[in-house]
Amino acid sequence: MTKVAILGMGTVGEGVYTAIKRSAARGSDLELKYALDVRDFPGAEFEKLVVHDFSIIEQDDEVRIVAETIGGVRAAYEFTRRALAAGKSVVTSNKELVATHGAELLRLAGENGVNYMFEAAVGGGIPLIRPICQCLHANVISEICGILNGTTNFILDRMISGGVPFDRALAEAQALGYAELDPTDDIEGKDALRKICILASIAFGRHIYPEFAQAEGISGITSEDVAAAASCGYAIKLLGRYVLTDDRHCCVYVAPHLVGSGDIVAHTNGVFNCVRVRGDIAGDVAFYGRGAGGLATASAVVADLEDCVRFGGKTKHPSLWEDGDADCLSSTDRLVTRWFVRADRLPDTTSNGETVFGDIQKIGDGVFITKPMRSDAFKSALGVFSGEAQVFSAIRILPE
Amino acid sequence: MTKVAILGMGTVGEGVYTAIKRSAARGSDLELKYALDVRDFPGAEFEKLVVHDFSIIEQDDEVRIVAETIGGVRAAYEFTRRALAAGKSVVTSNKELVATHGAELLRLAGENGVNYMFEAAVGGGIPLIRPICQCLHANVISEICGILNGTTNFILDRMISGGVPFDRALAEAQALGYAELDPTDDIEGKDALRKICILASIAFGRHIYPEFAQAEGISGITSEDVAAAASCGYAIKLLGRYVLTDDRHCCVYVAPHLVGSGDIVAHTNGVFNCVRVRGDIAGDVAFYGRGAGGLATASAVVADLEDCVRFGGKTKHPSLWEDGDADCLSSTDRLVTRWFVRADRLPDTTSNGETVFGDIQKIGDGVFITKPMRSDAFKSALGVFSGEAQVFSAIRILPE
Repeated sequence: MTKVAILGMGTVGEGVYTAIKRSAARGSDLELKYALDVRDFPGAEFEKLVVHDFSIIEQDDEVRIVAETIGGVRAAYEFTRRALAAGKSVVTSNKELVATHGAELLRLAGENGVNYMFEAAVGGGIPLIRPICQCLHANVISEICGILNGTTNFILDRMISGGVPFDRALAEAQALGYAELDPTDDIEGKDALRKICILASIAFGRHIYPEFAQAEGISGITSEDVAAAASCGYAIKLLGRYVLTDDRHCCVYVAPHLVGSGDIVAHTNGVFNCVRVRGDIAGDVAFYGRGAGGLATASAVVADLEDCVRFGGKTKHPSLWEDGDADCLSSTDRLVTRWFVRADRLPDTTSNGETVFGDIQKIGDGVFITKPMRSDAFKSALGVFSGEAQVFSAIRILPE
Repeated sequence: MTKVAILGMGTVGEGVYTAIKRSAARGSDLELKYALDVRDFPGAEFEKLVVHDFSIIEQDDEVRIVAETIGGVRAAYEFTRRALAAGKSVVTSNKELVATHGAELLRLAGENGVNYMFEAAVGGGIPLIRPICQCLHANVISEICGILNGTTNFILDRMISGGVPFDRALAEAQALGYAELDPTDDIEGKDALRKICILASIAFGRHIYPEFAQAEGISGITSEDVAAAASCGYAIKLLGRYVLTDDRHCCVYVAPHLVGSGDIVAHTNGVFNCVRVRGDIAGDVAFYGRGAGGLATASAVVADLEDCVRFGGKTKHPSLWEDGDADCLSSTDRLVTRWFVRADRLPDTTSNGETVFGDIQKIGDGVFITKPMRSDAFKSALGVFSGEAQVFSAIRILPE
């Protein structure tokens, strides 16, 4: 049996405990030896496994793999470094840690001949990291885009399908336990940014740090935006997006987008996530499922644990990327998309029949769609237009 | 460099050649040594690698991996057995061979300490086999359902979105090269049945032979069916379906289904495939992409080739299943679904307010939906109803 320790017995940690138990009942080789937490859990099934001191785990050579489900970048970062340095593989669901220190921790794992694996860090239970690393390995990935945050997708879905305003949809998400009491990281796109940065790092081969990329959230999206978008066949979705711009640069950002009904991403409802990957050989492939929830996330953690066992804890995971810097990122200013604009009036047409945005497609009262244009060109046109009209919103349209 | 031979230089074989070349340009360890075909390919880039005699490959110890893209169960079967017996791993896109002789070939690979891999046999370039085997390994898979044949999905899509009748949609598919000149295997669901049988074998752990399972195709689907289904919010899709009925049995079949608009499968258009997998831990996850095409399929073949290299050609693929027999399969008679019926009139209501189908939901002239009922019960009710009405169609509704 391979002895495992879980760090942090929160929702995901408890899910991992349950999933290990179920998988052991079906003959897996995993056995839980310790459950690290500050709490005691009197009466819990795993009560006798609870320890409060990480060094017990660190110094126990029998523990071959550590499942880190603490979250955040403090204790989780320290314990992960110490576990890797002690020759234990680490499996994690901690997107913040991977997005912030992934390159360093992958290097440390390699130096110690162990694995640092994080299938659960993006898309919860959706197989995503391993399929991109392994199954699409023959491909140059030119684009990744996806719904990476279930909370904001639930809120937008309620606005779209339920006609509910943003504030009430957020309150519903909180009442159902989908949103944190402080939902800022979700609503402002920070959570989605960490996840798209992890996927971008895999595709690009160098670490893409969230601090160098931009996130725009959904707090500015109104019921009127949602209705106007629907009137021309689009759903508004908060997307993380990676675009390979050339061999040495990529563009990574999070922002609301209008998504056409022909796109599978537009039909991802409720708390589900969906990630579409474009490869030069495989074409478009997409992955869909529950992006959060203790048990769904645990499914991915246990898959990584089982891989560590299968590889004997000694084979490096093929998702390694090198460190990166701000220079990897190309500005979103150069990205070309169509734009959806909602204002109190349509832009004037000049003598050549065009507007300040060039040729536009009129949708309705003050609502129009531009031709594909660079973001910087769009923004300067929008600056001019704002002088003559009240602009309520300007949202990118996801290219097909 | 790891030397590879391709067997069969058809669309997929040529795609594999291209994909190996691209991946070698990016530093992969694969090198093509032979291309087996009956033809000569004068002027082709790979002309000098062409051989006509399989024993050249069989006897060349330098060739570690064989990519079998011949198709069918004659030469492909013989060459695969000989290659495995000669200690070479075999990677294939041949769904017919895997569905027919998979258990035997997996066993033979194991006996010879090599791999038999078939990511490309189901869903073309969509990562599917490896995610199910590895990423969802901790799960008991209770259901798999999906669009596994792009040709029939294209035809149904043209009927749904284009209002085109079946015969014209089929002619369009043939003109575009999506359908074979003899499209019987596609139209009658035989191709989809092979693929769902492969996925079922993985999930169930025993070989599910297509000959013991039933396939119903789409040749009976009319424009009136498609329109009536759309009027109540459903799309008609040809689905392969695996349902775990108990520890020792499963139900596997192919048939047209009505799929609700809340289901991601309903939004899979054109030649795309989509497979939804239900795990007890991960919940519902789905995989989407191009199910066919030389290059998309080659992406999966090359992923398998690279895995063979990474594992040194000696590690067994964890998708092994044991042989199975007809007793594995439970009858579709016991499956419970709602049914969509289109007839020249609605069924009569008896004194207790019910019809021969029990309580029904009336959709329109002669169109109704039953409550969930066992197939055998539905069929006997349909027999009675057929005595008093002309029944045009009866189609299962996919449960949520």
